[in-house]
Amino acid sequence: MPVATPIDLADDDLTQVRFNGDGLVPAIVQEQGSGEVLMLAWMNLESLRLTLSTGRTWFWSRSRQEYWCKGETSGDRQWVREAYYDCDGDTLLIVVEQEGAGACHTGAHNCFFRSFGTPTAAPATTSGSTAS
Amino acid sequence: MPVATPIDLADDDLTQVRFNGDGLVPAIVQEQGSGEVLMLAWMNLESLRLTLSTGRTWFWSRSRQEYWCKGETSGDRQWVREAYYDCDGDTLLIVVEQEGAGACHTGAHNCFFRSFGTPTAAPATTSGSTAS
Repeated sequence: MPVATPIDLADDDLTQVRFNGDGLVPAIVQEQGSGEVLMLAWMNLESLRLTLSTGRTWFWSRSRQEYWCKGETSGDRQWVREAYYDCDGDTLLIVVEQEGAGACHTGAHNCFFRSFGTPTAAPATTSGSTAS
Repeated sequence: MPVATPIDLADDDLTQVRFNGDGLVPAIVQEQGSGEVLMLAWMNLESLRLTLSTGRTWFWSRSRQEYWCKGETSGDRQWVREAYYDCDGDTLLIVVEQEGAGACHTGAHNCFFRSFGTPTAAPATTSGSTAS
């Protein structure tokens, strides 16, 4: 099992983060090594503290209005290796070691498995769209 | 100069995207090749359409309440190569070729140049924090 590597906060770290009107900030989760963007979820101050102190990703579910720790039930845990905040302090980037099948609740390794411009329900026909 | 490669929308692409109460969706911008996460900004339906049809990144500025095309003034343009939406349809991932110095208005290549746990104003002392 991967080992947790908590991050000790510097004094002014958390004061750099700007939470929105709902007290939330978007957290991009990226896989260490591959650089794959796995998912985006939301953190409040407490889930960010938990993420850094436990070395596991903790989010705030806007739909369920509760904390959740990624992989706690599925086993697809995320082990935090690096954590950044952006120039404006209003976005987080969490670099993780992804355990198990992946980050997406669908079973996909990452949540971005659908691309624009790709017909989703098309039979095998000739390629592309015609001019219109 | 890099060449724009617009993305032809499939019929139901845009119906998959779930904009928030303000009509916005967060768009993660990732650099093609390096996999580096460059920035996060917000798109509305029209800026998403513009992004796909022009092959350049267009966002909606929440502070200025206006559209902006990345690099239009700085020259640090982003050329869209791939575009994804996530499993819930509420986050976008735009893969770009980054032109010029980088994506951040500070001049940094990406916006995530500050990490948690790293003292930001410390003089050159011995490493790390002490137990406390």
